[in-house]
Amino acid sequence: MEALLRQSRSMCPFLKKTSPATLRSLSTTTTGAHSASPGGGRMSNLQVLARRCPVMGKALAVQSARSGNTALAGAYGGMRAYHSKVDRAKFHSATPKEAQAADISTIRQEQVNTPLFASTGGTSVDQHKAAAAHAINSGKPAAPQADHFSYENFYRTELDKKHKDKSYRYFNNINRLAKEFPRAHMANKEERVTVWCSNDYLGMGRNPQVLKIMHETLDMYGAGAGGTRNISGHNQHAVALEATIAKLHAKEAALVFTSCYVANDATLATLGSKLPNCVIFSDSLNHASMIQGIRHSGAKKMVFKHNDVADLEAKLASVAPDVPKIIAFESVYSMCGSIGPIAEICDLAEKYGALTFLDEVHAVGMYGSKGAGVAEHLDYEAHRAGRPEGTVMDRIDIITGTLGKAYGCVGGYIAGSARLVDTVRSLAPGFIFTTSLPPATMAGAKTAIEYQMAYQGDRRLQQLHTRAVKEALKEVDIPVIPNPSHIVPCLVGNAEVAKKASDMLLEDWGIYVQAINYPTVPVGSERLRITPTPGHVREYRDHLVTAFDSVWTELGIKRTSEWAAQGGFIGVGEVGRKEEEPLWNDEQLGVDTVVREMKAGGAVGVLESILEKERVETARAVAAAA
Amino acid sequence: MEALLRQSRSMCPFLKKTSPATLRSLSTTTTGAHSASPGGGRMSNLQVLARRCPVMGKALAVQSARSGNTALAGAYGGMRAYHSKVDRAKFHSATPKEAQAADISTIRQEQVNTPLFASTGGTSVDQHKAAAAHAINSGKPAAPQADHFSYENFYRTELDKKHKDKSYRYFNNINRLAKEFPRAHMANKEERVTVWCSNDYLGMGRNPQVLKIMHETLDMYGAGAGGTRNISGHNQHAVALEATIAKLHAKEAALVFTSCYVANDATLATLGSKLPNCVIFSDSLNHASMIQGIRHSGAKKMVFKHNDVADLEAKLASVAPDVPKIIAFESVYSMCGSIGPIAEICDLAEKYGALTFLDEVHAVGMYGSKGAGVAEHLDYEAHRAGRPEGTVMDRIDIITGTLGKAYGCVGGYIAGSARLVDTVRSLAPGFIFTTSLPPATMAGAKTAIEYQMAYQGDRRLQQLHTRAVKEALKEVDIPVIPNPSHIVPCLVGNAEVAKKASDMLLEDWGIYVQAINYPTVPVGSERLRITPTPGHVREYRDHLVTAFDSVWTELGIKRTSEWAAQGGFIGVGEVGRKEEEPLWNDEQLGVDTVVREMKAGGAVGVLESILEKERVETARAVAAAA
Repeated sequence: MEALLRQSRSMCPFLKKTSPATLRSLSTTTTGAHSASPGGGRMSNLQVLARRCPVMGKALAVQSARSGNTALAGAYGGMRAYHSKVDRAKFHSATPKEAQAADISTIRQEQVNTPLFASTGGTSVDQHKAAAAHAINSGKPAAPQADHFSYENFYRTELDKKHKDKSYRYFNNINRLAKEFPRAHMANKEERVTVWCSNDYLGMGRNPQVLKIMHETLDMYGAGAGGTRNISGHNQHAVALEATIAKLHAKEAALVFTSCYVANDATLATLGSKLPNCVIFSDSLNHASMIQGIRHSGAKKMVFKHNDVADLEAKLASVAPDVPKIIAFESVYSMCGSIGPIAEICDLAEKYGALTFLDEVHAVGMYGSKGAGVAEHLDYEAHRAGRPEGTVMDRIDIITGTLGKAYGCVGGYIAGSARLVDTVRSLAPGFIFTTSLPPATMAGAKTAIEYQMAYQGDRRLQQLHTRAVKEALKEVDIPVIPNPSHIVPCLVGNAEVAKKASDMLLEDWGIYVQAINYPTVPVGSERLRITPTPGHVREYRDHLVTAFDSVWTELGIKRTSEWAAQGGFIGVGEVGRKEEEPLWNDEQLGVDTVVREMKAGGAVGVLESILEKERVETARAVAAAA
Repeated sequence: MEALLRQSRSMCPFLKKTSPATLRSLSTTTTGAHSASPGGGRMSNLQVLARRCPVMGKALAVQSARSGNTALAGAYGGMRAYHSKVDRAKFHSATPKEAQAADISTIRQEQVNTPLFASTGGTSVDQHKAAAAHAINSGKPAAPQADHFSYENFYRTELDKKHKDKSYRYFNNINRLAKEFPRAHMANKEERVTVWCSNDYLGMGRNPQVLKIMHETLDMYGAGAGGTRNISGHNQHAVALEATIAKLHAKEAALVFTSCYVANDATLATLGSKLPNCVIFSDSLNHASMIQGIRHSGAKKMVFKHNDVADLEAKLASVAPDVPKIIAFESVYSMCGSIGPIAEICDLAEKYGALTFLDEVHAVGMYGSKGAGVAEHLDYEAHRAGRPEGTVMDRIDIITGTLGKAYGCVGGYIAGSARLVDTVRSLAPGFIFTTSLPPATMAGAKTAIEYQMAYQGDRRLQQLHTRAVKEALKEVDIPVIPNPSHIVPCLVGNAEVAKKASDMLLEDWGIYVQAINYPTVPVGSERLRITPTPGHVREYRDHLVTAFDSVWTELGIKRTSEWAAQGGFIGVGEVGRKEEEPLWNDEQLGVDTVVREMKAGGAVGVLESILEKERVETARAVAAAA
């Protein structure tokens, strides 16, 4: 009997969703006119409901016509008997709630570690709530309501899971000091650390020109925008910022959002849901904001292997040419530093009639002659000469970027054709129904973009420092996941050890590098992700390398040579792997001549010499400007 | 034959999605080994695919066994014949593209006004792209690719729809001046207007204490946070702000997001998707951010009639007691100013075991002894005495609020139990994967909250000004949609007229009040939404009323008496309707004694006298502080 019941429940959505208590109350017989059975007998409410069931209804009609209520007695009546038994045996026992909770869990076959019902170890919040309800509704002394879901237990279960798989996040209190960049203080204001994992890649967050315009705008126009873009939150700062972004990417128009998370989410969700039968092709390492946007669009999604144009083409070819398509991908993948094959993806997009949606979040300000990103960098000279027509950047339909990383502020944007931008502006709830960014933020971001459009020094020095850090870590056999970008991911390979290494660096060495664990990266590829800036001069670098070397030894973390002995892993210690050339080449960095000369002379420490020279020149320039 | 084809296409998902061009190429016969037919004949690729179809496959197998490929010839072969005919008749005609576009549109039965294919009036962007693709892939002269979707035409179609239904939005360039609040300048810096529709309800955006701390934080900690909360973007400002918000709402914890749009979306999406079989009950007038969050959760949604607790209860009762439930609603509905029945909803939540999710976005800073919102206001005295236990606010599980309206900055938050907040913190992608708010913004917002916790003057004066505006408009028969809150919605009832009225107010009178049209409010209930602030003193109000009176006459917009003659509409001119008492009563405003005395003496202009007195006192206080 119980097996049959279990089976019925597993098949019937009504039974599955209905608690024993409800079933019990429904199985009370009724004599109301609407519930007279065809056979003239008395029916329970459960039987009344059963007659409306598309499956049971027919069976009941046939059976009733034949022999009264036999069918009902057989199917639902059996369950009623079961519940009566449970009633007596368990519900009214001394420990009624545990029994019920266990019961329902079994029936639902839910795999929960903590019972989710208020009555089983119910917390004070739930009990308080149930008690209050009881008091309100009955005026009698309070008692917890056994059949309500326990939200607090649910939260506890979810949090327990995070603790168990080591994905629970502990935030570090890091207060980055504008005047001591890249230094910060901890909760204790006296305790200084060096920040080695900020996305304020160029230190624009403390750029004097950015701060100056922000102060002025704050005084003139106040702290906030005061409304959505449609209702009193549109202003000259928004107009000017969007014009600057459009100019940066050589597009017709741009649109600013509260963040690039929202820009990606809102744009993909809007286009994916509005374009008829749209299919979205998504790189397997895409950022969460794009994944969410695609999910929210409800469009069909096809995930292609990371940076694999052959896989992408196979998938594009599987969809009819006239079906709208979006290829969503990134230029710099921030957790491994790999760079998307933008030009090749443009070729495919044009061949198969797809829109290209390129996230340049980790690249804007950092690559290209004007800092427009990797797409610009691929035609460095053409853009420097002001000839964007026909370039890779020109071929991209939608570029998204952030104002919160290399530009040092906060906010995100899209850039593209005037009609595309106007469509997203007109249709995306995530843009329409939210307060605009503050005037001072928009003014600061605009200044940061313009500063970087006019000056290559910061991103050039950032690239030189990146090279230096990668070289120095290589010398002490620390496993840097190879890549052509400004990201320096050091492979640890274990969540707990990665966190321990991060804690040790912070506490013992005053170095802040956050551990990157699952779900941000796959299990087994946990890492420490270093992001050098123009402010990370030699002293900081030397200190970093010494600290890493020590922590690696202390925790017994694998070195590059050890990974190599195992055949290598995600590029680390892979024998015969072609060294990836940095995207910023020697010539673009303006160091080709000196590198050639020094290497020809058999000099060592080439990079160090260049950096020392840079340093002296920078100091001179700063002194001259002051 | 064509009717049969159309029918097949409407039923078969494969045929529906596949273009004629693809079908044509698939119908080419093949001689590959894998495609030998059971009868030994040659099969087309289409036939190969058909054999894999769960519907056609069986039929084919039976037919093949009987008589070779007759079935295929009948079913798919017929279609092939159709395509061959189309090929000859249309695809290779002199105007191939229009024909194909029209064809596919007809087959799909899509109701599109503008053909969506590049070839039909294709724009320069599409043609440029198609041409580029052609050049790249063939090395031959460029020609547009006829069978690709035209994105630019799609955008144009979407924008045309917005223009046609008058929902296309034109943004006004409004630059709110901190030192001249509530005045602003337009694109032209000399052109001044009075802003009457900002959500900076209390003028906190220009509050000297807020601006002071923001300047200091900007100098000390820079423009941006530099990372997500997990990676270098967590700091003392976030810790302090969240502690202040938790204290404000007397909750265990709080969590700050980039906006309350994101807070609502992320929290509802996370809870709704994680709570097993969760059902979300949503007020029919809920904000877009909640609607999106519910949609994104994938949870079952039941919409209850606006503020209708009977309807809500019926819906709650229809779901089993143990199923997790969330009731999502607002305190102040911003477009009509109605106020949710919070206490009654708490009763129902407790009775049916539901979580309460209350959006106080338009109420925080504005109601309650500490400015915590309407939930606090309902137990004004208890909270003033520091006894939150058992109050309505205490009974709410999740309160969401904004830092961008009455608090004058930007950002949003949730407040609730420690475990709830930790769960959302740990699971919500919209929180995890985005750059933190800038330190200066967080410091400013914290100061604004604390300022309003300690000082009732701004919101008290705001309420007095609201009363004054409502009374003055009433006197000239302007139809204000009645409500107990600080929102003053003036009914227009037509999108075009509402926009015209807004434009006329701006251009002729220097008054900025945005028209609120569909989809923000239902068609036919378009309105001008006025939001008075403490800065809207008598001169501004008199000017506003004169302007409204004039514009109403000039455009022939219905007056209250005219609506009344028609039986009234959404509360306007409804005879016998009970006057709604303002939520802030005379006693709470501290005007009960004077109101009673003056009314007893038969005095008129009571409110005006009070305001004049307020004004003198405020001026004295400001002078003393300076």
